[in-house]
Amino acid sequence: MSRIHKNERIGAIIHILTEHPKKIFTLNYFGELFGCAKSTLSEDLDAVRGIFERFELGKIETIAGAAGGVFYHPSVAPKEIENFSNYLCEQINKKDRIIPGGYIYTNDLLYNPEITYKIAKIMAMPFHDEAVDYVVTIETKGIPVAFMVAQVLKKPMIVVRKSARLTEGTAIHMNYITGSTKRIQTMSLTKRSVEKGSKVLFIDDFMKAGGTAKGIEDLMKEFESEVIGTGVVMATAEPKEKLIHNYHTLLVLENVDEEAGIIHIRPSCI
Amino acid sequence: MSRIHKNERIGAIIHILTEHPKKIFTLNYFGELFGCAKSTLSEDLDAVRGIFERFELGKIETIAGAAGGVFYHPSVAPKEIENFSNYLCEQINKKDRIIPGGYIYTNDLLYNPEITYKIAKIMAMPFHDEAVDYVVTIETKGIPVAFMVAQVLKKPMIVVRKSARLTEGTAIHMNYITGSTKRIQTMSLTKRSVEKGSKVLFIDDFMKAGGTAKGIEDLMKEFESEVIGTGVVMATAEPKEKLIHNYHTLLVLENVDEEAGIIHIRPSCI
Repeated sequence: MSRIHKNERIGAIIHILTEHPKKIFTLNYFGELFGCAKSTLSEDLDAVRGIFERFELGKIETIAGAAGGVFYHPSVAPKEIENFSNYLCEQINKKDRIIPGGYIYTNDLLYNPEITYKIAKIMAMPFHDEAVDYVVTIETKGIPVAFMVAQVLKKPMIVVRKSARLTEGTAIHMNYITGSTKRIQTMSLTKRSVEKGSKVLFIDDFMKAGGTAKGIEDLMKEFESEVIGTGVVMATAEPKEKLIHNYHTLLVLENVDEEAGIIHIRPSCI
Repeated sequence: MSRIHKNERIGAIIHILTEHPKKIFTLNYFGELFGCAKSTLSEDLDAVRGIFERFELGKIETIAGAAGGVFYHPSVAPKEIENFSNYLCEQINKKDRIIPGGYIYTNDLLYNPEITYKIAKIMAMPFHDEAVDYVVTIETKGIPVAFMVAQVLKKPMIVVRKSARLTEGTAIHMNYITGSTKRIQTMSLTKRSVEKGSKVLFIDDFMKAGGTAKGIEDLMKEFESEVIGTGVVMATAEPKEKLIHNYHTLLVLENVDEEAGIIHIRPSCI
């Protein structure tokens, strides 16, 4: 193999780090890949860090010591969060999205990987420094965004089912009451999916009164685990007091005026 | 802003392309970002292409002409597909994964973003040159892998529900018969989610006789659309004749020996 140029090392490092958010790569790993000395790599990594800073591409972080290494920490610049949130509000506030009953059709946004990856990068931001073992969600519409938050935080996802799937093994089954419509619903989670003593982050697409989020909190207690944070793409402005405290939302839904065909939605400050 | 070095341009280009698989970025876009001439960018892109080739990081492709530009085409080298498939088989063939009834617990793998992204990069490979409008899946376990295939192909995902969700608007509701257990099941899809005349790729985690895949084919006909390909993570060896033709699988499940606690599974040649 001919000599590897600095350009090539930097390019390959950036590709590998970018494809694996929050995964720690040791200097040894890159040293073997390129057949070069650690001192050379240290200079390369300084350059990589500089590139991410200069173009606001997220952060490159270094962990010192024997188990140390380098990883890509995705983040979005404040101005870009603002622009993107406004873009989402514009996309959502369209008459033909209103479904009888005041629901909003958002599948085309939540099932679009490019949009959802960006939402997830923003939604993950408050939780990067928290000790999170799992990202938990409830089927079905929140799964894509939860999975991408899991990707950004490099954590496994857990999907709570609305009915027991015994093909996934013994499950804990629990009733809960929806916060807004006061209906009894069921949630179910395979026993082996959460280790005792875990800390989880609950991610969902939508929150009204917070009944589901409260249900997840209770379910996690059955697993001797704890919800340490909650993030949703969109929360309603009313009721102001949710059944859980301490959640983050990207967008705030003020109200849906079915008659006029207007969806009043605005960015939150996540 | 001080002058931007070649290293920096190459690094930023690679980060941006890597984060957006199959998204076309024009030379103008990069020209404005860096404030440099197209001739300079052409040289940079040659270097970028060379880096991806040298380290087998996937492909960088160029589209000529006015609407032209450059994009990242994820792919996995044959040797790595082999290694990774073997790794997955080793992970799966563990006694404690067997669930009464001969089912296999795989949530920890399918809900792990790093593993699933790699599975998706491989599963997408046969379909990069097909005209695909949507990646379709059925809730719940296949959603993460389908969504990452959608990300790799830069297409929207569609999730068929097992029961109608009228909060997503008017739906087409259909019965189908599972291929192996001959049970009647229901699938439901919001009318507005697929445009007439679409070509879709069906992605799921598991296939036995292919009843679900056949059901999706029939459902797509109701939308005047067509399934042009099917990919699953794991298909059983028996029955050999599935209810659909022409599918790709990453792994082949020979059988589950519940008594001995052995899962016979092997890589396919996708």
